[in-house]
Formats: sequence, C-alpha cells, structure tokens
Amino acid sequence: MDAPPAVATREVVPRPVVRGAMGLPVVGMVGGGQLSRMTHQASIALGLSLRVLADATHDSAALVAQGVSVGEHTSLEDLRAFARGCEVVTFDHEHVPEGLLEALEADGVTIHPGSAALRHAQDKGVMRERLAALGIPVPAFTPVATVRDIEGFAQHVGWPLVLKAATGGYDGRGVWVVGSAAEAAEVVAAGVRLVAEELVPLQRELAAVVARSPYGQGAAWPVVETVQSDGICVEVVSPAPGLPEDLALQAQALALRLADELAVVGVLAVELFQTEAGLLVNELAMRPHNSAHWTIEGSRTSQFEQHLRAVLDYPFGDTTATAPWVVMANVLGGEDPDPDLDRRLHLLFGRDPALKVHLYGKQVRPGRKIGHVTALGPDLRDVRARARRGAGYLRDGHWPEVEQQ
Amino acid sequence: MDAPPAVATREVVPRPVVRGAMGLPVVGMVGGGQLSRMTHQASIALGLSLRVLADATHDSAALVAQGVSVGEHTSLEDLRAFARGCEVVTFDHEHVPEGLLEALEADGVTIHPGSAALRHAQDKGVMRERLAALGIPVPAFTPVATVRDIEGFAQHVGWPLVLKAATGGYDGRGVWVVGSAAEAAEVVAAGVRLVAEELVPLQRELAAVVARSPYGQGAAWPVVETVQSDGICVEVVSPAPGLPEDLALQAQALALRLADELAVVGVLAVELFQTEAGLLVNELAMRPHNSAHWTIEGSRTSQFEQHLRAVLDYPFGDTTATAPWVVMANVLGGEDPDPDLDRRLHLLFGRDPALKVHLYGKQVRPGRKIGHVTALGPDLRDVRARARRGAGYLRDGHWPEVEQQ
Repeated sequence: MDAPPAVATREVVPRPVVRGAMGLPVVGMVGGGQLSRMTHQASIALGLSLRVLADATHDSAALVAQGVSVGEHTSLEDLRAFARGCEVVTFDHEHVPEGLLEALEADGVTIHPGSAALRHAQDKGVMRERLAALGIPVPAFTPVATVRDIEGFAQHVGWPLVLKAATGGYDGRGVWVVGSAAEAAEVVAAGVRLVAEELVPLQRELAAVVARSPYGQGAAWPVVETVQSDGICVEVVSPAPGLPEDLALQAQALALRLADELAVVGVLAVELFQTEAGLLVNELAMRPHNSAHWTIEGSRTSQFEQHLRAVLDYPFGDTTATAPWVVMANVLGGEDPDPDLDRRLHLLFGRDPALKVHLYGKQVRPGRKIGHVTALGPDLRDVRARARRGAGYLRDGHWPEVEQQ
Repeated sequence: MDAPPAVATREVVPRPVVRGAMGLPVVGMVGGGQLSRMTHQASIALGLSLRVLADATHDSAALVAQGVSVGEHTSLEDLRAFARGCEVVTFDHEHVPEGLLEALEADGVTIHPGSAALRHAQDKGVMRERLAALGIPVPAFTPVATVRDIEGFAQHVGWPLVLKAATGGYDGRGVWVVGSAAEAAEVVAAGVRLVAEELVPLQRELAAVVARSPYGQGAAWPVVETVQSDGICVEVVSPAPGLPEDLALQAQALALRLADELAVVGVLAVELFQTEAGLLVNELAMRPHNSAHWTIEGSRTSQFEQHLRAVLDYPFGDTTATAPWVVMANVLGGEDPDPDLDRRLHLLFGRDPALKVHLYGKQVRPGRKIGHVTALGPDLRDVRARARRGAGYLRDGHWPEVEQQ
C-alpha cells in the first residue's frame, strides 16, 4: 500500500545520507539571519535540529541553534566542511557565489534550491531575461554598462527610471531611481553591474509565495499586499485587500509555474507590481521571505516548515489561513541603540494579549529589521491597527496613534 | 501613562539582572526533556534563547538549544553554576530536591515556581494534606508506612485501593493498584514512602491547565479530557466533550484558586477525576504539561510561551482556542528500536497534510513518549480519528483502522 506513485514528474537523484537524532536527515542552512532562526524554530517540531553556517556566533540563528558552524559563505573550504555534516543544504540568503554552488554540486552535495534555479534570484539580469523568454510580464528592462546605454533606454521609457545592481541588493540597497543622465552617471561611477528598468506606475505591491518540492509538488499561500517604506518591507496584509479573485489566481498560477520552470526547491516568493495593465514580476526570492512571516500564526503550515518539507521532499502541509485577516508588521530598530525591550514587551503584552511577537536577537540599529509582530482576526482595520501599534511601540516606546484606513 | 497599577497583589521581589541578546532576561530551565525542547522553541519568538541544564548532550532539548550545560539536577554545585548564568530559573520536571531549591533561594536565585509552591508537586503527601486543608475535594487518602496501616485504611475505602510513591513518580510509575494485604506487602517491601488512596470510581479524567505570574495574574485554557493507557497519557481532547459548563468553570476556578493559594509561578496543570459526585483533584504539575501540548496550534498562546511569560512576569497571552476541537495524541515508541521515521513522516504528510507533528529527538523505546501529533477542526470524530491514525502510524508504520466514537 506504500508503493511509489506510477508517475513522477522528475527523476529522483539520490542524496547522501547524513542522519541525526531519530534517524532523521540533517538539514543545514547557509546564513545565520532571522530566516535561519525561524527555520530552526520550525525544524524542532519535525524532530530536526537545523545546522547553521553563520558569519559570527552572535548571528540571529547562531544564538538559538545547537549545530552552529562559523565560517564564510564565500569560502569554498568553509562551505565544503559545513556540507559534509548535512544531508541537504539550503540558504537564508542569495549571496553564495554561483561558482561555489556549482562546485558543491559537483562534489555531490544536495543543495536546494540548486544553482541553476538560484541564479535567477541572484542576478536580476538573468532573471529578467528568463522571465521575458517565458512570456511572463516584467517591467521594460535592459542591461546597461554606460551612461550612454541608460540615455538610450530612457528614450524608450522616459525619465525617471530605475537602476538596479544586478547582484547583491536587498532591502532597498542596490536600487536607485534616477531622474537624469547626471544622476545616472553617479550610479554608474560606483562600478557595479547594472540593469535599467522602467519606473512602473504601480497601484501597489503584492507577493505570491509558493513552495515546490523535488518531486514537483507545489503549494501556494494566499496572495498578500506588501507595503514598503524606503525600500524596506514594513507591513504585509493577507489576503491582499480587494484583490479580484482572477488576479489572485493569476498571481498564484504564475508563481507556481515559475517555481516549476526554474525547478525551484523550497519557498519561492514572487514580488509583483499591481498596475492598471495587470501584474508585473518585480523580484524573486528562493527562500523563506519577509512577505510570508505572517504564515507562522496565520496559516496551518508556516513558510519555514514548508521550506523544510520542500528540501526534504516531504509532501506539503495545509496552507489554509487561520483567520480572515492576518497582518504582519516589521519591527525596525529605532534611534535608541539600547532600548529597554524587556519593559516594552511587558507593557505591550499588557495592552494587546493577542498580538504575537517575534524578536530576532539582533543588535538594534536604526531601520534594521529586529523583529516582527502579527495580528489576526475578522476585522481588517482592527487587525492592521494592532499590528502597526505593536511594531511602532517596540520600535520607539511610544504608543502610536494609528489612523484607521 | 505607563505608571504601575495602583494595586499589586503581592510585593515584588527584585531579581538579579542577567541579560542576553537585545538586553532581554536570560531564562534557564533545569531538565533537558521535551518540555524544555518545546519551551526553547517558544523562547525563540520572544527574542530569548533558553539555557538548559541537561543530563546529557543527547537530551531532547540539548539537541536544539544553544546554551546547554550538562550537569546533575541533584548537585547543588551544578545547579549553582547554572543559575549564575540565568536571571530566572525554571524547571521541566519536579525532581530537584527541595533542600537544593531552598539553598538556591537562599543564594538569591530567582526560581519559578519557588520551593514553597513546588513541594506540592513533588510530594503527594504534602499536596493531599494541603488540598484537604483548603477544602478542595480529593480522594480519601492517608500516608502509610506498613501493611497494617494499609489494612486499616482498607477498612474505610475497601479493596482494591491505590498506593502511590510520595515522590518521584511519573507516567504511571510509582502507582500501584493493590487488591489485598499480600499485594500491598510487595509494594511496601520496595521501601519507598507511600500514600494510600481510595480507588475512585471515575467517569473519566480531565485536566484544568492555568498559568499564574508573580504579579498574580492568572490565565486558563479550556478544560480538557485526558485519556490514559497504562498510566501514560495517550490522548487529550480540547475542550472535554460534553462537559457541562458549570463543571468546566468550576474546574478552571479551582485551578486558578490553587495557583494563587500555592503561589505557583508558571503553568499549573491540575489533573482531575470526574465522578458522579463531582470533581476530585488527582495530581498537580507546576510546569508545561502533556495535557496542554495541544495549545501549540490549538490556542493563540501556547503553554510554553505562557510559562515563559509567567516566569518573566509578563502579562499573559490570549488563550482563545483556534478551532472548535483540538485533539493531541502522543506518539509512543513502538517495538522497532530503529524505525524509518523519515519514510513514515513522508507517507504521513502525504496522507494528512493538515496534521501537525512534533518529534522530540529521543531514542525510540517501547512505550516511551517520542513525540505527539495535533489535529484540529470543526468535527470531533474526524479530528480524533486523524490524531489517532497519525500517532499510530508514526509508532508502528501501519495505517490503523480507527473506530469512530
């Protein structure tokens, strides 16, 4: 009765067997940030203990996980030593150079997502070209090397336009809106490889987050609205308010198709622009993503558990939402580098017993993501106001007035 | 606006300040079992990293937490060394001798629950005396030292009766049902201090689980039905099916009153017998308890988060249930000491995508608690059948037929 199904969508490549407690596979994650931290939290339920390759012992995940290696994600030697103790290796960021990923694969290491998928999350030029070739709507774009290239592109899309570092950007870093050739020249002078894009007249930003397993199974969460401030995600609302069902289904289908076309294994977050003309793909991330932190309490299966299921090729968990509305607000560091968070937690819990708080163990710096809060319930205005107030209070120690919208 | 309230129920004793990441208090838990493991999981969200005093590096919690000390919970030296690194010390079992708890308190260590409370969970004689003095219904009982004592007690309650080790029992160990003086003599010969109790003609067992903070705040979860097999809890149903509301409220009020009378800090589980004549208190536990594992997914605030809030004197989280019915089934070790749990998880997840699995990283031994599963939803029969099937499958690798009841 436990025979394998007759049809498998892909050939299964055997992986090395490295087992830990209870004979279960050892999963390693490169990167010790909050995504690793929360993946470790999810791994505990599955009988696992995430191994983490961290930059330093005070990294967010290194503070809470047992199996921590300190090393450089740009060192093949460090990556190889780490991979030897793991049955599967996955990532909390996209910063491992492609050549090193390929070297690990040549060693026989199982990495999920693989290098052939991950390059589309590492290089915006590669991603844009591939998506365009697949017929997936993206903003007008072109790789650019000189100011003359940019001026030529501006003749098609006008000023202002957007310049993006092809690799290495995150949280608004590596993105510049430039209004003239002179402004573009300053960016070009920095010497990074660039992609130019039209400045899309967007109505709002959405994210379609899905997961895909090696076997080819896909699972989608509701499409969310993401709210950015200075290029940093500050709020996520699930489901995206007022999104017509056909657009929501289109976004989910697009993300599932992309996961399959690119052979992603793990969570894939597709950041979208909603425009009058329809949806455009902005960015891809192939890992647990800020736009799905709400799933910890807001979905029967969190993105962190689902990512683990994916890299272990386990069937996916139920993605049903646990409430009509779920709002996650990021807690950014405020001006005080040493806030009394013990006191703030105390008072916040007194004010809102139903708010769920996640703190990442990180040193506070202005604007840095140091945690998030999640509220859920039947009334969007109430849920959103509670999430905003909670995040604002942890940031500043002031109980903010929130205009209801 | 953040002034303290005008009335506090108890004097606040200042505690030593030992801070970790983000300036948050360091919480230590004595004992490295699954309760520590799941408390660590909850601590991560609160920005903490639980420190664990474990017996061995392969203990359930020691496998997943960063700050693990290996030492003896019966060694004052080990306890003192551990406590020096903690702002608050709490427990995943009741086995630290009372004298050592008192010595730590004399050192100025903050332990929650304190020795004066914890002795009621450590010594069944002390507990029974105190509860009887408080007018709380308990089975007829008496401390016994000889077979003659037991025969005398049997003249009041009849045979069979129950003998319990006054200290150190758990999961059915240290409990004997004896039908005659000869059988009682065998138990007496073991040389442990005993309490004799009437064998209560019970309808079923219930548990009322609450939490209490140093400030005096209380919080209760719904009263649950617990199902035992060979003295081990195998299933918990929340809320207890068919329990009249007045009895549920009575059980919650009793548990909250007990928490207050005994000055418990942390989670208090009150195990109850439901009889024709009403409720009787069977046992007390002052720590996260098997009868509330269902709260991880089934309540807005889990018992593990609540226990941490209690020992940190934070206001409590919302205990609203997330579904009409929640059933937790323990996964016990089966006959095979080395089952292929990777394969079983794989197949189980395919069969029931909504079942939530928790494995404890423990070596499999027959009858040992190695994990639990939780199902929730609107239909009790369905939810219960799913939880039973899932736990049975992880135990034996067979998909059990479950009679619907």
